[in-house]
Amino acid sequence: MTRIVDLPTPALIVDRQKFAANVATMVAVRPGLTLRPHVKAHKSTALAAQLAAAGHTAFTCATPREVIGMAHAGLGSDLLLANETVDVQRLRAMAQFLDTSSSNTVRITVAIDSETTATLAAECGIKDVLIDVNVGMPRCGVSPERAAALATFAVSLGLNVRGVMGYEGHLMAVADRDEQCNKVRAAMGVLVRCFDEVRAQSGNDCTIISAGGTGTFDLYDPSDPVLARVNEVQAGSYALMDSHYGSLNLPFQQALYVVGTVISVSDGWAVIDVGLKSLGMDHGNPTIDGASVWFCSDEHITFSMKDGRPLPSIGSRVLVQPAHIDPTIALHEVMHVVDQIPMIGVLSSGTGTGGQVAGEKVAGGQVIDTWPVNLRHW
Amino acid sequence: MTRIVDLPTPALIVDRQKFAANVATMVAVRPGLTLRPHVKAHKSTALAAQLAAAGHTAFTCATPREVIGMAHAGLGSDLLLANETVDVQRLRAMAQFLDTSSSNTVRITVAIDSETTATLAAECGIKDVLIDVNVGMPRCGVSPERAAALATFAVSLGLNVRGVMGYEGHLMAVADRDEQCNKVRAAMGVLVRCFDEVRAQSGNDCTIISAGGTGTFDLYDPSDPVLARVNEVQAGSYALMDSHYGSLNLPFQQALYVVGTVISVSDGWAVIDVGLKSLGMDHGNPTIDGASVWFCSDEHITFSMKDGRPLPSIGSRVLVQPAHIDPTIALHEVMHVVDQIPMIGVLSSGTGTGGQVAGEKVAGGQVIDTWPVNLRHW
Repeated sequence: MTRIVDLPTPALIVDRQKFAANVATMVAVRPGLTLRPHVKAHKSTALAAQLAAAGHTAFTCATPREVIGMAHAGLGSDLLLANETVDVQRLRAMAQFLDTSSSNTVRITVAIDSETTATLAAECGIKDVLIDVNVGMPRCGVSPERAAALATFAVSLGLNVRGVMGYEGHLMAVADRDEQCNKVRAAMGVLVRCFDEVRAQSGNDCTIISAGGTGTFDLYDPSDPVLARVNEVQAGSYALMDSHYGSLNLPFQQALYVVGTVISVSDGWAVIDVGLKSLGMDHGNPTIDGASVWFCSDEHITFSMKDGRPLPSIGSRVLVQPAHIDPTIALHEVMHVVDQIPMIGVLSSGTGTGGQVAGEKVAGGQVIDTWPVNLRHW
Repeated sequence: MTRIVDLPTPALIVDRQKFAANVATMVAVRPGLTLRPHVKAHKSTALAAQLAAAGHTAFTCATPREVIGMAHAGLGSDLLLANETVDVQRLRAMAQFLDTSSSNTVRITVAIDSETTATLAAECGIKDVLIDVNVGMPRCGVSPERAAALATFAVSLGLNVRGVMGYEGHLMAVADRDEQCNKVRAAMGVLVRCFDEVRAQSGNDCTIISAGGTGTFDLYDPSDPVLARVNEVQAGSYALMDSHYGSLNLPFQQALYVVGTVISVSDGWAVIDVGLKSLGMDHGNPTIDGASVWFCSDEHITFSMKDGRPLPSIGSRVLVQPAHIDPTIALHEVMHVVDQIPMIGVLSSGTGTGGQVAGEKVAGGQVIDTWPVNLRHW
């Protein structure tokens, strides 16, 4: 039986219990197809299969590779590529998959926000599209006043317009909940108006209003005439969480850590073998429970202990909480699923020889499954 | 013939001419074995082979995987693992390679900074070590006053002590050159004293004083009694450079870019398909010549053009300069070598269909080689 302390480091580990609790919390608020989980957060068909088993069988993807990988894994009954692409070869590869899928039904819907993206999708054999509307964040999405015209254009090309999406990413981290809710309602008001205009140009299959993320998953109040019409939420981070989302008082728990090994101890600090190449750094430094992170190098974190606690000895395992999970996971080949992770930053003392650690301190640290991060790259 | 505009994006490209110029600039200052190029910067045996052809046949590595991969590639005549490790399986894997290498001679030297790391190296069959000395940066390295005792201990275990290393990483980015030189001289004074003490405890094979990086490569003044004794510099970034080192007035040119494709254009900004998963972000946002980067998302950069230039059209290729190359390259599977890269941020207009771009604007953008990033992970 492999334990956390037996894993070569750096290694990603997932706390099965917290992951399961996060999934259950989401299912209670957004069950079944009312959530379209985002695959980009974890890039793992094994993890996605867990979400499908919990009832979420339609998925959001960020890259054609994610779309095609999900389809190959038998999870392709309703895949949305929520980003625009003008890559003809990748569009054709997705369309070809549609043509050749016989045993399992694959449906792939592609976001479009311009006549160019609509034209290329149609030319390459894509059948279903969603009109991506800019609801306030300066990124992709057609401006609201042009959404209906784009739908008309898409229909003229023979595309099936399934609805609209609008990602209010600029509102994910608004700290004040009332302020956040008001701003989300305003953004969704724009999106719902666009939907009604788009629907008037499209067929009866135009039903989707897709939006949101982990930071707004519970704001689509079923008693609110606007918010209730959002029928899909695209959250992804909720399942594993990170310290950035963790600071927002959401009902999800940190379930993903990078395990490191102490390789050097000096007077006042220690160093582990986790660094910039095993951590997404765009949200800043990672955290270690009970310790102060000084800085990260390519393959190292230098840290000291808080509250007068002694430094760990060489060989000790340390749990690092990444600030942003999406780019962290993209750096790793696998995630190891552990039945339960101790609630402390420094796991155990040891000389790194695997068997010579204080086993009683890491009770519950058994590796019970390994999920390949098999949808990486593009 | 594949051109830059034919590559699926995001894609890493290397400017062959600038790369060659960087290599030549380094060879003029630190020829042959006076440079021990760091593999961690690029993690590619194909790139390392270019440096070996230029005369640098001894290499610095950050991970056991880099060491073993270099040895397998026939580049293992003198490999230094410049980081400590307490991973018994990986130490044994390196040592086993030593035993089984018959046709080509492989030599692997491991950095140690504690009795634990020395003991594990010896127990696992490692023969050669370097005493890693802390010369001022709070990371790994034995404190200078304990270096000789550690050498004595290592010798008592049967290890061959080849010398000392001390990485003055905290001095790489000191902007004032005189101040930097004075601080480096002080740090190297410590390292040279340690070497003399270590050498007194070791055999005649104790000859190495290894230090430095791209930011200090030319500071080891041969007329200075202390600095002249540093006989190896561990620079790695110089070959490809990044915008962080590029701000330090070094004689190396930016030779690595991430190519993106414009997927969306709005009133005032455009979006390319390069983001947090194709860029190392610890040194901050990347740059685009002639443009202002607004922010990065997982798979996107939002930017506007400077000086009233028009926004690129959908399908245009854009060259992104990463702020830190090491973690950027670690996110990619390959680097494409291009004979010459145009000196502008936005390469061309096009619809993304490959052939429909303004070819004359990208003259010289032929892909002439592909270097796998084959030493990734741990």
